[in-house]
Amino acid sequence: MTRQTLNQKINLKGSCLCVGLDMAPVSFKSICRIVEETAPYCVAYKTNTAFFEASGWEGWKCLEDTVSYIRTRFPDHFLIADAKRGDIGNTAREYARTFFDRMDFDAVTLSPYMGFDSVASFLEYKDKWVILLALTSNHSASDFQFSEGTVGTPLFRKVILTANTWAGSDRLMYVAGATRPQMLQQVRQVAPDRFLLIPGVGTQGGTVEEVMHHAKTTSGDILINVSRAIIQSEAGPGAAAKEFAGSIARFFS
Amino acid sequence: MTRQTLNQKINLKGSCLCVGLDMAPVSFKSICRIVEETAPYCVAYKTNTAFFEASGWEGWKCLEDTVSYIRTRFPDHFLIADAKRGDIGNTAREYARTFFDRMDFDAVTLSPYMGFDSVASFLEYKDKWVILLALTSNHSASDFQFSEGTVGTPLFRKVILTANTWAGSDRLMYVAGATRPQMLQQVRQVAPDRFLLIPGVGTQGGTVEEVMHHAKTTSGDILINVSRAIIQSEAGPGAAAKEFAGSIARFFS
Repeated sequence: MTRQTLNQKINLKGSCLCVGLDMAPVSFKSICRIVEETAPYCVAYKTNTAFFEASGWEGWKCLEDTVSYIRTRFPDHFLIADAKRGDIGNTAREYARTFFDRMDFDAVTLSPYMGFDSVASFLEYKDKWVILLALTSNHSASDFQFSEGTVGTPLFRKVILTANTWAGSDRLMYVAGATRPQMLQQVRQVAPDRFLLIPGVGTQGGTVEEVMHHAKTTSGDILINVSRAIIQSEAGPGAAAKEFAGSIARFFS
Repeated sequence: MTRQTLNQKINLKGSCLCVGLDMAPVSFKSICRIVEETAPYCVAYKTNTAFFEASGWEGWKCLEDTVSYIRTRFPDHFLIADAKRGDIGNTAREYARTFFDRMDFDAVTLSPYMGFDSVASFLEYKDKWVILLALTSNHSASDFQFSEGTVGTPLFRKVILTANTWAGSDRLMYVAGATRPQMLQQVRQVAPDRFLLIPGVGTQGGTVEEVMHHAKTTSGDILINVSRAIIQSEAGPGAAAKEFAGSIARFFS
């Protein structure tokens, strides 16, 4: 799927919402119910491998079943494996096979620490995406991501400037957290035409308004992920997704 | 297991060899054969999750079976999950449960990019270890790990200096690749009393001699991992492990 196609989907629906299916313990039945309820309000789903792995091989089977189910039932939705992998070349190839061959994800999140080798194998898949961690939403993102390099460039900017040369904007996007809105603007400066996957809205404290203000382009180029605030909502996942979608829609009218 | 206990095992056996069980596709039967043949020559096994995940849920089951098998058959061997995970707090907790509760690994490799949050949950397990990526063995480690910070400190040194404050030398060790021996020395300067897990010997080009020269302490504090050069050896894994152990033993006499 190209950047243009994904932006078309988002603008057509008036929603850039991505629902994160992070539950513990995982339950295929619950996931199906959440997906059925939320599908009208979102354009993407994100499965975090940690929650599936914690249930062992049965959890991993649930992940495979979840991918097949969403692919069949809602083929238009963009499917993200939030795996944050990153390893040497021959190992990266195995991870790429896992998420793109064995399972039919559209995109996988990767960590930049080991550099290009750890990303290259994923970029060999023509219609798939790499989503590289740049500025994460957690408190201790500051431990290393804000470290300033020799020319005063924080690491997350160096990551983006470097990875911009690895693949075009149809193949590589960045994770940029909603919890530091000013920095989101800095991310956008160095990634003006890239999709951003934005976690940190909802339970972690970021807001749709700030994210839209600092990170949306005229084309869109944005996926806002919400996990706990939707799937653990007292009003139910459908109602919560509808509410988030409503606050998002204003920015696409 | 404490640093002292692990060093005692190594010095008693005269081997700090760790065998990496990285095969594609995975086969429980082949793994058992490799483990039986190599166990006398090594003190640790490392399973890389990528190779198991590429076979889907059956692969994940093979990983669980492998852990149970080694734990039962060779309870003295140190067991490493080479997972290179790294995520926000609530997700890290699930990964920690996976590798330390659901499976009984002694240690798990983690990526430092997201900082302390992504490591904290693992440190709550009293007898377990975190093995943090510092200086990796791959070519593109240079993309970010050598970036110099404001005071001229490359990122991998900053990672070590920072993570040294997160946990003591009984709980946290570092990955430091054998492919850049001079830098290994720099790692040892800032981690004088830490275990180092050293990949990159064998197929990747590093040598036992250089590693020992630059990274071994008087206590030991070193695990040398060899994967492909042992399990894909034409002479057989047992013979290859014996040969590596032989070249290692000289340094422990």
